[in-house]
Amino acid sequence: MSNEQLDQLRGQLDEVNLKILELINERAELVQEIGQLKRKAGQNRFDPVRERAMLDLIAENNQGPFETSTLQHLFKQIFKASLELQEDDNSKSLLV
Amino acid sequence: MSNEQLDQLRGQLDEVNLKILELINERAELVQEIGQLKRKAGQNRFDPVRERAMLDLIAENNQGPFETSTLQHLFKQIFKASLELQEDDNSKSLLV
Repeated sequence: MSNEQLDQLRGQLDEVNLKILELINERAELVQEIGQLKRKAGQNRFDPVRERAMLDLIAENNQGPFETSTLQHLFKQIFKASLELQEDDNSKSLLV
Repeated sequence: MSNEQLDQLRGQLDEVNLKILELINERAELVQEIGQLKRKAGQNRFDPVRERAMLDLIAENNQGPFETSTLQHLFKQIFKASLELQEDDNSKSLLV
């Protein structure tokens, strides 16, 4: 095996990891903004219909190599973490 | 609450979701290439040192709002799914 080839692929992988990191955090900021809007309106933050719509959009746009079920599982983990972040925000605002 | 404002944020969220989807699949392709190289060299696909290095890079580059521990948990899920994808590839190649 050419170590050079492996190092090059690993370098590309690191770049992709950092882009995913940036987007997951960008996503979290958007979810926080949505949470604030919903809190002001007294709406429940968790919306299963909206979550379903997002998962459907993933399914429609998946070009592989991951199976849609795998991707939906990963996105559910991201959704769950985002919801927990909103709950933290809420607890903090209650303390002020 | 302005529904228009909520719809706009949701539109942005959908766009970010699709970008994450694309990158996770791009990442999976790179992992498949790395797996093929390693298979040819008879190397073990799972490399805990390399995984640790990727998690450290996430920690160094995290600008929030997610906690580093949350992000590392999400990335570990992505790593695990990628490894399973490599194993699927391997089983398929054994069948040929």
